[in-house]
Amino acid sequence: MPFARIDVRRDASVELVRVVSEAVYKAMVDVANVPVHDKFQVINRHAADEIVYPEEGYLGLNYTRDLIIIQVTWVGGRSTEVKKKFFRQIADEIHAKGGVRKEDVWINLIDTSREDWSFGNGEMQYGPK
Amino acid sequence: MPFARIDVRRDASVELVRVVSEAVYKAMVDVANVPVHDKFQVINRHAADEIVYPEEGYLGLNYTRDLIIIQVTWVGGRSTEVKKKFFRQIADEIHAKGGVRKEDVWINLIDTSREDWSFGNGEMQYGPK
Amino acid sequence: MPFARIDVRRDASVELVRVVSEAVYKAMVDVANVPVHDKFQVINRHAADEIVYPEEGYLGLNYTRDLIIIQVTWVGGRSTEVKKKFFRQIADEIHAKGGVRKEDVWINLIDTSREDWSFGNGEMQYGPK
Repeated sequence: MPFARIDVRRDASVELVRVVSEAVYKAMVDVANVPVHDKFQVINRHAADEIVYPEEGYLGLNYTRDLIIIQVTWVGGRSTEVKKKFFRQIADEIHAKGGVRKEDVWINLIDTSREDWSFGNGEMQYGPK
Repeated sequence: MPFARIDVRRDASVELVRVVSEAVYKAMVDVANVPVHDKFQVINRHAADEIVYPEEGYLGLNYTRDLIIIQVTWVGGRSTEVKKKFFRQIADEIHAKGGVRKEDVWINLIDTSREDWSFGNGEMQYGPK
Repeated sequence: MPFARIDVRRDASVELVRVVSEAVYKAMVDVANVPVHDKFQVINRHAADEIVYPEEGYLGLNYTRDLIIIQVTWVGGRSTEVKKKFFRQIADEIHAKGGVRKEDVWINLIDTSREDWSFGNGEMQYGPK
């Protein structure tokens, strides 16, 4: 049920986008109890002035034009520990497989309810029977 | 007050985008108690690798490159029954008028509060007086 | 910690995008208690049929193709008064510095928790120690 919106620079390669997409999906399944094949994502590529980050850095972190913004909407209720592992695995994977600096992996989560999802066919697959 | 973010494939026609846009708006008014003319939407068109779905399908549903992702942000409080009708009407309309498979209509809802909206002029139109 | 998604017409100038970006960031810092340099935004430029608004207007407001859609995700808990000031300052600034009609500045807020953010490095910077 999670949905990921991923924003990258315009010239991100098809291969890098695939690495990011797989990293987000794999972390969902590995640490956040998301079912296999529950993989719905939208990627947006951006011109240089369309991804804005603090040039001075923030919280001691520094960013480059490679910054990847990942916003995940899912069903609420996951623990702080699960969210921590989720963040860590995504950054680790994108760094290991895509060569992106871990500081350039930025993630935000939005909680919703089970009734807030239709996976197709006009049905509420996760709602009460 | 709802806001819909709609993601479609790059070569979606102006006519199909109009059908999807109208279907989402009409379902809001018909079943979700949204006022007439409360119609604010953003559409993004995407390259083939920018809309990601499980090629194996999910929950018995199968998807194609025509997949349409609809993410609606609105004021919370709507019942499960209303949400079910909302999902169904959107899928039915897009199928009937746009020829899209119902399995390729994917919807997610995000709840917010009445204070979270400014429709212009820097005012909080739905907030307490 | 806020994240702003900003949608503008395709031919919005680099200068206007910068004005909007700065207005949103400055209002966060000035009225919403956001730390300096906490500035993360994504801009999307759109074709004419990709930003949808009611041609009849809504709530007595009228819109043009210059409509700017600003969706802010941040940590919940801000008061109605703060949100009102936030809306007002953004519209005032974009009007004063970008020449955009205040009616064409549209804002929506989404609340999340402190645990829902990773600013990089795979860490949960705002979470419990």
